[in-house]
Amino acid sequence: MTGRLDIVGLGPGGPEHRTPAATAAVEQAEVVIGYGPYVEQCADLLRSDQEIVRGAIGEEAQRADEALHRAGAGARVALVSSGDAGVHGMAARTLARAAALSEDERPQIEVVPGVTAALAAGALLGAPLGDDFAALSLSDLHVAWDVVERRLTAVAAAGLALALYNPRSRTRTWQLERVLEVLREHRDADTPVAVVTDAARPGEHVARATLATLDPETVTMRSLLVVAGVSGRVAGPWLVAERGAGVPA
Amino acid sequence: MTGRLDIVGLGPGGPEHRTPAATAAVEQAEVVIGYGPYVEQCADLLRSDQEIVRGAIGEEAQRADEALHRAGAGARVALVSSGDAGVHGMAARTLARAAALSEDERPQIEVVPGVTAALAAGALLGAPLGDDFAALSLSDLHVAWDVVERRLTAVAAAGLALALYNPRSRTRTWQLERVLEVLREHRDADTPVAVVTDAARPGEHVARATLATLDPETVTMRSLLVVAGVSGRVAGPWLVAERGAGVPA
Repeated sequence: MTGRLDIVGLGPGGPEHRTPAATAAVEQAEVVIGYGPYVEQCADLLRSDQEIVRGAIGEEAQRADEALHRAGAGARVALVSSGDAGVHGMAARTLARAAALSEDERPQIEVVPGVTAALAAGALLGAPLGDDFAALSLSDLHVAWDVVERRLTAVAAAGLALALYNPRSRTRTWQLERVLEVLREHRDADTPVAVVTDAARPGEHVARATLATLDPETVTMRSLLVVAGVSGRVAGPWLVAERGAGVPA
Repeated sequence: MTGRLDIVGLGPGGPEHRTPAATAAVEQAEVVIGYGPYVEQCADLLRSDQEIVRGAIGEEAQRADEALHRAGAGARVALVSSGDAGVHGMAARTLARAAALSEDERPQIEVVPGVTAALAAGALLGAPLGDDFAALSLSDLHVAWDVVERRLTAVAAAGLALALYNPRSRTRTWQLERVLEVLREHRDADTPVAVVTDAARPGEHVARATLATLDPETVTMRSLLVVAGVSGRVAGPWLVAERGAGVPA
């Protein structure tokens, strides 16, 4: 007997940006597994007849294995992530481990997409991702820093807008300083940037600046950093990127 | 008297991937404006007491102005896009035009994010966007082709996964051939690619190939083209990109 695993993106915050497909996957699950704060993000859906497994940070591999094991044993399981599980969430890691199972052990799996942080932050700011953009993580936990820096250099030099995930943590602080140096080498000092913290959550906060004026101390592990592309500009109260602006026709 | 304009991303297809915030914005609108097929995408929400304005392709500026004018005159207006209105949708253009209005003429405006095509396609395929990625449009309607090609070259050379919007149309056909040439110059011939057509809509279709084997004829104006990054690989039935795979540690 094999069950089913839904790998669910809950969206950026409250239920208003959570899709009906994500809501249904959590409601129909017998077992809901996730990093503690992500489980809390769908607390409005949880029932006493469901088994709830709240994991800790750093235990992602164990959570993926537990979700696969429980679903493989016949349970209907929802593995929940904030935002979109396929963008710096649990989906890739979990599917890679699922692929290593025999077809007998492998449950039916579906990935349920969600509104990722870049889209929530973009909507708050206006439309800074309206032209081409890149979504990069600044974490050097799984890749060497020079890989992070090489990718950042390439997209900055190409003039794309940037949505930068995991820009800073308590222990990763010098990296953001270096990121700003790299960006200033390749983009104008007056390039608009924005720090969006807790987008679509209680305490939501937006700080606007430029590459020259950004204070790294305003950036936390709950922030997303948006850097305007060459077509991005301040327009009234918004940041907008109209395709074709700022580049030769 | 000024009204209110919601610029709404309806998600990729049916109601299961449309957020409650998007649904509420359409339901509460007195006037719903959009390109015809996008208005149809929220037909389940429309009522006879609402005014519905179905626009044609190529009339985006007129739609933006009509939405702003009606909201500025006091109506509650929803301007609807497929996917996320801030990603190759109506948000940037509309906000840029709104910014040119005097504050008296300018209605209250909110952008409601949605699940963009890249996320819907990624979830169908597994998690090909689980590591860093870029979302580019291949249209040369508003930017010169050499800009498209320069950006593509930069992100391909950097090894990012790619979500390529507007990959081909009835009149734009040679461009995709050239895109594949550029990609083959900078990435391995066996790099996995996927053509996702009508993601999360009736007729949804996924075609998997490699850079060497992709048939451009399988790509339509309703397709999104996903190209794996250096960390992307085929794993069981899925495409996955685990951060740290395929790059020096």
